[in-house]
Amino acid sequence: MITKIVVDADYSDGLRGIDDYSHLIILYWLDKVDRVRLTMRPQGKKDVPEVGIFACRCPWRPNPIGMTTVKALERKGNILTVKGLDVLDGTPLLDIKPYTPPYDAVEEMRCPDWVNNLEY
Amino acid sequence: MITKIVVDADYSDGLRGIDDYSHLIILYWLDKVDRVRLTMRPQGKKDVPEVGIFACRCPWRPNPIGMTTVKALERKGNILTVKGLDVLDGTPLLDIKPYTPPYDAVEEMRCPDWVNNLEY
Repeated sequence: MITKIVVDADYSDGLRGIDDYSHLIILYWLDKVDRVRLTMRPQGKKDVPEVGIFACRCPWRPNPIGMTTVKALERKGNILTVKGLDVLDGTPLLDIKPYTPPYDAVEEMRCPDWVNNLEY
Repeated sequence: MITKIVVDADYSDGLRGIDDYSHLIILYWLDKVDRVRLTMRPQGKKDVPEVGIFACRCPWRPNPIGMTTVKALERKGNILTVKGLDVLDGTPLLDIKPYTPPYDAVEEMRCPDWVNNLEY
């Protein structure tokens, strides 16, 4: 999925140097989320357990902030073209952070087996 | 650095299953940030260029949301003990997301050399 992110022109200067990164972390406000669910079965799959909202990436969170790590493809002025951002058109952008290994990379990790049953 | 995160008791059910993850992504509101800077020299270092706020992880962002990936050490009820969260005491918690490789892991990446000059 290819997506265009339009940064408010007032903030264009904030993009200086962003082309040096291959990946960006996009934070956005899930403005269509109209309720909070504390537990749920991710993607409604039968082979996935019911877990807490903080143990999954479902959108019905107390603060409906979405976060996706994307590949940066191109920038033209204040418009970024990225790969991997699956959001509704018009979703408000909150922040862009550059993917920076000392902050974001995890080497040895553990997560539940059921995440392998989800569709990505 | 070891930090305790206190989740509001109203949201305790949202933590179900979180113990199955080794790493968590913590989102928080940088409530002491009182201005926006569109460009800056990260950590004020002479061997680091002046870059846009979206090309660094400095706090003076249009939306001052902090994000840190931490190692989960222990949970007792609604209190999580984590390693690697360097925030001021009392910083408001926005969200907790479980580190999940299909969403968060990046294999081949590129970032500017100056990030190696920063202190982590």
